[in-house]
Amino acid sequence: MKAYLAGPDVFLPNAHENAAAKIAICAKYGIIGRPPLNEELGDLAQMPEDAAWRMIFRKDLEMMQACDIIIANLTPFRGASADAGTLIEVGWFLGRGKPVFGYSNSAASFATRSQAQIAAMPDPLTDLTVEGFGLPDNLMIPGAVEAGGGLQMILPADGRDRVFDALDMFEACVAAAARKLGLA
Amino acid sequence: MKAYLAGPDVFLPNAHENAAAKIAICAKYGIIGRPPLNEELGDLAQMPEDAAWRMIFRKDLEMMQACDIIIANLTPFRGASADAGTLIEVGWFLGRGKPVFGYSNSAASFATRSQAQIAAMPDPLTDLTVEGFGLPDNLMIPGAVEAGGGLQMILPADGRDRVFDALDMFEACVAAAARKLGLA
Repeated sequence: MKAYLAGPDVFLPNAHENAAAKIAICAKYGIIGRPPLNEELGDLAQMPEDAAWRMIFRKDLEMMQACDIIIANLTPFRGASADAGTLIEVGWFLGRGKPVFGYSNSAASFATRSQAQIAAMPDPLTDLTVEGFGLPDNLMIPGAVEAGGGLQMILPADGRDRVFDALDMFEACVAAAARKLGLA
Repeated sequence: MKAYLAGPDVFLPNAHENAAAKIAICAKYGIIGRPPLNEELGDLAQMPEDAAWRMIFRKDLEMMQACDIIIANLTPFRGASADAGTLIEVGWFLGRGKPVFGYSNSAASFATRSQAQIAAMPDPLTDLTVEGFGLPDNLMIPGAVEAGGGLQMILPADGRDRVFDALDMFEACVAAAARKLGLA
């Protein structure tokens, strides 16, 4: 069982150590974790930008095709919602009918985070709706997780935000996915 | 040819008028536009939140299944990137192998918008990478558009941001999609 380890983790300064820790956690639960790092692509800084990003895109898409499930880090990133690239990937797995699992290190509701975002960077128009429903993000995200993997998003049960790169919610998500898939 | 009209347009105070204008533009190019509004779902405010959001999710998924292509408004929304729900939907169409077309009313690069976001709401950790490549959003978004529909994201060619609910980039996207699909 190969899991695509989506998330803004790739933007961490210690992305490789983080990925190794995630792979080790997955292995405890009988899952092969595949992080979408770029280390096999050569020195991207030496390539024309257009060639570099398309190479990363193709590599990520091929890795998604080779994986059976996605375990997505849906912690908010540079805005009220989860990382943009991760959301494309979650949608792709849902479209393919491959199981979707996801977690967030944020305990705040989407409505609360949206209001904080608007306070810091006002909306371009007034009176744009703030989505409620008590959800952790735009309803398409918990919807994709629930419809795709049959579980709800894993969130801090104690109501406390985790630091951005904490891995306890990730491990809870991997454990829940393994149980759901009959691996544990 | 039915097009799912994804975007944060549903959060506009005049979402119905906006959707009607988009449908009329699509019709000029031989495309049937389907906006994911919630008007047929009854009074959502009278329903339990858990029932309401799941009903919207199911309705949107059914509408996506009934559509042939997606035309996505990828204008940034409450953060550095496009609307979260829209990104799930773009990924879903890519996963299904259905053509993806998209546009943005923002002329700024993703790197520029990311830096503005960080200035207004600092990252949770220092030294998180800011993605470059001169792209309009996280590379998965122009990647999904290019891989899915064979075109690049439609952006203001004059380098000027459009107002949030402007429709000229939308019309340029519909026209380009219609040409690509042999409708015009």
